[in-house]
Amino acid sequence: MAGIGSRQMDDATAGTGARRARVLTGYRPTGPLHLGHWFGNVLNMLSLQQDHDAYFFIADWHALTTDYEDTSGLLGNVEGLVLDWLAAGLDPERSTIYLQSALPEVAELALLLGMVTPLSWLERVPTFKERLRDLAEREIANFGLLGYPVLQTADITIVRGELVPVGEDQLPHLELSREIVRRFNRFYGEVLVEPKALLSETPMIPGLDGRKMSKSLRNDIGLRDDPDTMRSKVRRMVTDPEKVRLGDPGRPEICPVFALHRELSPDILGQTEAGCRAGTLPCVQCKSNLADRMIVHFGPFRERRAVLEDDPKLAAQALAQGEEKVRPLVEQTMGAVRRGMRLA
Amino acid sequence: MAGIGSRQMDDATAGTGARRARVLTGYRPTGPLHLGHWFGNVLNMLSLQQDHDAYFFIADWHALTTDYEDTSGLLGNVEGLVLDWLAAGLDPERSTIYLQSALPEVAELALLLGMVTPLSWLERVPTFKERLRDLAEREIANFGLLGYPVLQTADITIVRGELVPVGEDQLPHLELSREIVRRFNRFYGEVLVEPKALLSETPMIPGLDGRKMSKSLRNDIGLRDDPDTMRSKVRRMVTDPEKVRLGDPGRPEICPVFALHRELSPDILGQTEAGCRAGTLPCVQCKSNLADRMIVHFGPFRERRAVLEDDPKLAAQALAQGEEKVRPLVEQTMGAVRRGMRLA
Repeated sequence: MAGIGSRQMDDATAGTGARRARVLTGYRPTGPLHLGHWFGNVLNMLSLQQDHDAYFFIADWHALTTDYEDTSGLLGNVEGLVLDWLAAGLDPERSTIYLQSALPEVAELALLLGMVTPLSWLERVPTFKERLRDLAEREIANFGLLGYPVLQTADITIVRGELVPVGEDQLPHLELSREIVRRFNRFYGEVLVEPKALLSETPMIPGLDGRKMSKSLRNDIGLRDDPDTMRSKVRRMVTDPEKVRLGDPGRPEICPVFALHRELSPDILGQTEAGCRAGTLPCVQCKSNLADRMIVHFGPFRERRAVLEDDPKLAAQALAQGEEKVRPLVEQTMGAVRRGMRLA
Repeated sequence: MAGIGSRQMDDATAGTGARRARVLTGYRPTGPLHLGHWFGNVLNMLSLQQDHDAYFFIADWHALTTDYEDTSGLLGNVEGLVLDWLAAGLDPERSTIYLQSALPEVAELALLLGMVTPLSWLERVPTFKERLRDLAEREIANFGLLGYPVLQTADITIVRGELVPVGEDQLPHLELSREIVRRFNRFYGEVLVEPKALLSETPMIPGLDGRKMSKSLRNDIGLRDDPDTMRSKVRRMVTDPEKVRLGDPGRPEICPVFALHRELSPDILGQTEAGCRAGTLPCVQCKSNLADRMIVHFGPFRERRAVLEDDPKLAAQALAQGEEKVRPLVEQTMGAVRRGMRLA
């Protein structure tokens, strides 16, 4: 079913013979991408684009499950994210890049899936409970937040997604989607495709303070940061707290600076590790080396991003192109769903 | 705002000046209509059609909140209900008659309203708790059932409904819709119209066994029943249990047969009541009088219904006509909603 081929995009939707497997991943438009996203997601998406029939969507409705009170930045975030993706090398010809809210049928499918999704399944989702705890001070326990996994299942199944890249921590969500699909199909026939996990190991990218890089922790280095900002942020990064004086031996395995070297400095990785352990490489020098490489590494991204910035309607164009490509698949799925449920 | 006028249907959607108030009512397609529906709803709809800009929709998605396991009768029920409505005198030129599921935007609006609807508001809805109790043996506690009031709010607000006919027992639902609208508008501006209740007193129509007439209790007299069936059902009706022998005085106020006389027998109501109380009118005769009038009363309906039955595509035509009429209003509302939420 999920054979790998090199057929054209359009063939994949025909559902005939050998073709590339359909893979789907969505992204909440919460702000500019940072290095954590780059190494955690974007590189993976670029790789998926090579050998899969890839669907990348911007989950603007999902953003509302928590950030519903102030949506003033939403449209700007969507545009910025598309331009980030394009600058990173996602290709709207090769992949299908679209906006969730451009497809009202996703909401329709979510509504229909909700009719067969037991409340108890949703209430025991770990992230639902966690979010309620984390955000206890806000009026956060809305119906939409509880329904997040149902909407996610609609996202996946409306494009007949076969593979969904997930980390270990996301496996329970995908398992829930699979359960919803099985229950739906049990009532209405083999209408929906049951998605499989594409387990992806992504490196933990630490932020300036050593915790996981995250915009909400304000410890991030942005892909759009200019070279001076990158350099000054790297300079502020925490290092091994026991290495206080030059000559003290350091522990690269716990140093966030070294974690970024792993991704950015293949040319000097060995000597950096050795110099740190021996205490001969001063942290200031080590950070300067990292900043140099980071600035060079993201140079091409920065330049393409600047060009795109001058022509932001390219974002709308890419999304329109994606919508046009995804629409036949959406209509095919919804036709089968409505017929299966005897609504049509 | 809700002035009564005699302008054309199309003017009402323009939102200018004096016009008829928009009133909305929906109906779950659960099976053939019976006398309880006729006196409880249909007569009210016919009256609304006279002096309001009336929207009557078939709530096929709502039917799925409880009857999701077997949907094989759904399409037939929808067609049957439209034909019942047409036979009763609802006029697709004058009113807007449409199918809920023909408008994916209703699901979209429900999804968006769900983002701002606290779970606690939904969990305390009395009918939600009751249904869970009544149907405890079924796996009924689905996400869709909990979200019923959210979907209902979308139904009302997508057509900018100003008035919603409700009985006393339905007031809490409408109040919840009003709360959701106010909360939405507080976040996103005065986008949605807050509906008002149009309190309608509807008579309690008893079924054959004296309990409220209901298809699920199998105590109903159907509008489509043929004269012989009507007569035989009336003959089976319970009467005052203390009136066992001819000559025993009866209590019309507790007799289900007399309750139907009230609706159907203005010509003999006084003498029926007097004869019952005096014990001079035998129940058999009283029932025969009722059956005579019932058969005559529903004669015109039965005849029109039979004609329509021969041309069932009229149902699809009426729904298509309604969909075309409602669409500009739906697009106007959804444009305002998407802009208000900064999704577009």
